[in-house]
Amino acid sequence: MTNIHSERVGAIRRLMEENGWDAVVISGSDPHGSEYPAPRWKQVEWVSGFTGEAGDMVITRDHAGLWTDSRYFIQAAEQLAGSGIELHRTRIPGAVGLPDWVAAHADVVAVDGRSQSIGYVNGIREALFRAHFDMDRKPDYSIVDVPDMLDRVWEDRPWFPVTPVVTLDGREVGESRHSKIVRLRKFLMAESKDAILLSSLDEIAWTLNVRGSDIEYNPLVISYLLVTQDDVIWYVKKDSEDIPDADTVDSFAELQADGVEIKSYDDLSVDAAGWDELFSVFVDGKTLNYNTYMMLVDMLDESGVYVGDSPVPLYKAVKNPVEIASLRDAYLEDGAAVEQFLYWLENSVAGGRPVTEWEASQKLTDFRARIPGYRGNSFENISAYGANAALPHYSTPPEGSAVIEPRGLYLTDSGGQYVFGTTDITRTVPMGECTALEKEDYTLVLKGMISLAMAVFPEGTAGCQIDVLARNALWRSKRNFGHGTGHGVGFYLCVHEGPQDIRQNFNTQPLLPGMVTSDEPGIYREGLHGVRHENILLCRKAGNNEFGQWLEFETLTCCHIDTSAVVPGLLTLEELSWLNTYNAHVYECLSARLPQEVAAWLKEKTASI
Amino acid sequence: MTNIHSERVGAIRRLMEENGWDAVVISGSDPHGSEYPAPRWKQVEWVSGFTGEAGDMVITRDHAGLWTDSRYFIQAAEQLAGSGIELHRTRIPGAVGLPDWVAAHADVVAVDGRSQSIGYVNGIREALFRAHFDMDRKPDYSIVDVPDMLDRVWEDRPWFPVTPVVTLDGREVGESRHSKIVRLRKFLMAESKDAILLSSLDEIAWTLNVRGSDIEYNPLVISYLLVTQDDVIWYVKKDSEDIPDADTVDSFAELQADGVEIKSYDDLSVDAAGWDELFSVFVDGKTLNYNTYMMLVDMLDESGVYVGDSPVPLYKAVKNPVEIASLRDAYLEDGAAVEQFLYWLENSVAGGRPVTEWEASQKLTDFRARIPGYRGNSFENISAYGANAALPHYSTPPEGSAVIEPRGLYLTDSGGQYVFGTTDITRTVPMGECTALEKEDYTLVLKGMISLAMAVFPEGTAGCQIDVLARNALWRSKRNFGHGTGHGVGFYLCVHEGPQDIRQNFNTQPLLPGMVTSDEPGIYREGLHGVRHENILLCRKAGNNEFGQWLEFETLTCCHIDTSAVVPGLLTLEELSWLNTYNAHVYECLSARLPQEVAAWLKEKTASI
Repeated sequence: MTNIHSERVGAIRRLMEENGWDAVVISGSDPHGSEYPAPRWKQVEWVSGFTGEAGDMVITRDHAGLWTDSRYFIQAAEQLAGSGIELHRTRIPGAVGLPDWVAAHADVVAVDGRSQSIGYVNGIREALFRAHFDMDRKPDYSIVDVPDMLDRVWEDRPWFPVTPVVTLDGREVGESRHSKIVRLRKFLMAESKDAILLSSLDEIAWTLNVRGSDIEYNPLVISYLLVTQDDVIWYVKKDSEDIPDADTVDSFAELQADGVEIKSYDDLSVDAAGWDELFSVFVDGKTLNYNTYMMLVDMLDESGVYVGDSPVPLYKAVKNPVEIASLRDAYLEDGAAVEQFLYWLENSVAGGRPVTEWEASQKLTDFRARIPGYRGNSFENISAYGANAALPHYSTPPEGSAVIEPRGLYLTDSGGQYVFGTTDITRTVPMGECTALEKEDYTLVLKGMISLAMAVFPEGTAGCQIDVLARNALWRSKRNFGHGTGHGVGFYLCVHEGPQDIRQNFNTQPLLPGMVTSDEPGIYREGLHGVRHENILLCRKAGNNEFGQWLEFETLTCCHIDTSAVVPGLLTLEELSWLNTYNAHVYECLSARLPQEVAAWLKEKTASI
Repeated sequence: MTNIHSERVGAIRRLMEENGWDAVVISGSDPHGSEYPAPRWKQVEWVSGFTGEAGDMVITRDHAGLWTDSRYFIQAAEQLAGSGIELHRTRIPGAVGLPDWVAAHADVVAVDGRSQSIGYVNGIREALFRAHFDMDRKPDYSIVDVPDMLDRVWEDRPWFPVTPVVTLDGREVGESRHSKIVRLRKFLMAESKDAILLSSLDEIAWTLNVRGSDIEYNPLVISYLLVTQDDVIWYVKKDSEDIPDADTVDSFAELQADGVEIKSYDDLSVDAAGWDELFSVFVDGKTLNYNTYMMLVDMLDESGVYVGDSPVPLYKAVKNPVEIASLRDAYLEDGAAVEQFLYWLENSVAGGRPVTEWEASQKLTDFRARIPGYRGNSFENISAYGANAALPHYSTPPEGSAVIEPRGLYLTDSGGQYVFGTTDITRTVPMGECTALEKEDYTLVLKGMISLAMAVFPEGTAGCQIDVLARNALWRSKRNFGHGTGHGVGFYLCVHEGPQDIRQNFNTQPLLPGMVTSDEPGIYREGLHGVRHENILLCRKAGNNEFGQWLEFETLTCCHIDTSAVVPGLLTLEELSWLNTYNAHVYECLSARLPQEVAAWLKEKTASI
């Protein structure tokens, strides 16, 4: 059986044969380690048909495999059907990861070093070393870097995205680009390096106070940024044929007036060739692509290229007072849009009008789009009814999506990009009668969300040390969820950012005042239902005493939690009080921003239980 | 001002001058990395007068310093007075650790490699390297290993302890020494090493099913154990002049019959000299002393000595069914002894008899000593009344200890060594009227202990991921405690053991079924009072379902918790129910083991609230 995807695998195998490669590794990122790449780099999707956000491939002469985790097992099995591509399940007991698998099956491994990070390629290199060392095979393995490898078989492959560049006023984001560059220069002094090459697109956007729309949902500009004590050089993609649009021309002029030199994306290698042999540059191994790294090593020698953790994620994660004030407003505006959507949904479904998941998703976007400063959604809306919500990353199909019935649970996870902030919210909505299990799950997940929101903790505490607060109620009932509880959220940037998180890992990054992190426990029952409650939390100081400095969370999200599916007996008095206080606060903050009939409805929805 | 300790520092300085050393590092362990060393290795105490369990010294020409942590700040300040030795506080913001301090102040550093571990000396070496690298000083630093350095100035220094060796029947401890050695041989196969040299005394005692009493409170025998595929060689201290006692003669015969060769402690270096140059040996860098390690490196070359983590701590931590059954019994016997003590204490104090902390401590030991199989206490009893309990590691003075008054809180933390298990328990006892703050602290700490005891968690969970359960109630009230919540407990071995723990670190060791760990949150208010509640928990399976394998705790400790200081309104209904159920269970299990009047008293003490 062949289909378009097995044909594409065949084309890659011919490439392998011509070049003497044993295996090709194809991964799902771009030259900048972006979580969501532009269409040009949706290489795994093009080859395999798999559309999940996490998936990497290996093709050998007699095997084609896709590695993905439990979030995508069902989806991958469906999408790979007929392609001949085998699903490799990761993060399960006994799983063999891609690096070890390829090392056990190949000596000459071709990678696309332009779309794979230093760390990724080195992971494969280490696995090859281990395999050849352990198996007493001759150490004759090699990694062949084939930049833009798929260009050779992907005829209509999209080109680099090039979208208008806009600037943000330093006063609107609380810190000028000058001040941010001074921070980087101090970092370089402390590290005794001459330059830092930023490769992560959100780090660059944050540093320069620029935004674009090169990547869907992510307001980024594909580029590199080099900062030295004297220079700031932005290597940004603009096709020589294209005359930049007016916005971009203005933005470039503003940046140049601020001392930022603007060069073509490809000039980085030209410039690097001219760098003094004593020049030392700091790069981040998680986001810089292997090909560019090797180019720098060629020019500067290995000792001139220092691979470490960029300091920008931490700078960026700690929001300044201007950003915090804007975010509070963003969450009010966003909450009002979601309330209008929930009012519309409840009335439509209760009124007997058949509403599909897709229509609901569009309607929610419509309400958000009316907010001045809206610049799109921060990720693809998840709009899932009933058993569909049991897929934590359900993708609502435009055609043939499920009709939302006046019973059971509907889950909506969505967010907006506004020039004054990025939002992310999940509400699980009882559409009518719910089963006892639905109500119990709804309540236990809510207990977890509330317990984390109420946390008070000493300075220095990391997310993994308090994650259990969001899980304890579920664990006590032997229930769990397979994803993290919380991720950092950007400021008119990516909806997922680090370096902090709240999950069952051993990330030692402490939660700091000013950090914004989600609080989103869930539960997923295949074939039945899914529940997730998500509020966004701002970490802030809570005073100090003889026991030290204390921190707590302020809930930014402002949108009521439906109490109709709550089993009150499962909540402690404290949790019940939190819930009633929260809902009352939501009504108080939003009622004036809502149409009268929505405000009246919200008053009922937020009544104490 | 001089005293005996400043004189000893002076003697060491003369030694330094004679030998051209810039600094001497003196630390508080023995050649086996023991937590509590025998008197011979109480070197820091001899030099400085400081008796705390954690403290290291550096002496330079013009400075003598002692490094210790917050548990001992008050005690150290008192004990160092007049010695001229300066206190360096560790684990506080801005603290400079001993290795970095010595590296900044000395080039030639003398250590006693016989009583300092590989890891400890390497820590100093790395600090020297960093300091000399950073400061552009010439790299002319060196570490001089002076085995048994203090022998030269400590005239009546105690010799090695040599106590009778007894064996435990494999049936009594659930696994024969043969089976344990087979486990080590499989480990060697997997690691491709010829031998493992065990240096940690509790690992050796566990492996051979032997016990001694070389170290107070720890039933250990000072020795090394070498295991290869063919041989088991026990290098054990016995002075040539001494004819071993009858017990030891029998034990040696039993071991020899089981194929264990017994050699003199010092024969290790003799044997090592004869090892083939291709011989490879696995050692543990945390417990093997630096001097022996360097001797092995000399004999075998660096490539022949592999420094890693011994597998024995994990074998030992997971108790087998026979050990678990014995431990349940040990905690019943021990609990009955503590109940008799608590009955005596309450009646004595209420009856107006002046009871001192020291007398109470002795009385508690008396009750334990009546238990058949008692082999001493598992650590020095902590018997602390009122403000004395604010010192988590208070050491009760034999003379002049405080009188326990019929008001406020008395804290007792103690444990027994029995041939059928090791116990550890803390009870905080309201002696009469308590202040509102005492009651609140008592209740919040109890909430933490109960919350951890009730935990259910998925397989793979590490202690640091659930530690917050014991702290959350305190944290919510902005209170905290500065020690870990839980440590592993041995089986007729050390009262502290790894590799698991429950604390705010990032120890990734999962809690496994069969592990025994303490649950002991606390709170300490200088000048006022201290509260700690400690039960011992056995990790066990709790079934599996669609969400995976679940684990939970069984509380082994069987001794009532006084409810008179509990503020019931601070407990959730679940916590209150746990407390009442626990106390009822204690009465049910112990009443038949207690004298009638104690049982009657216990019935009242365990009445539901």
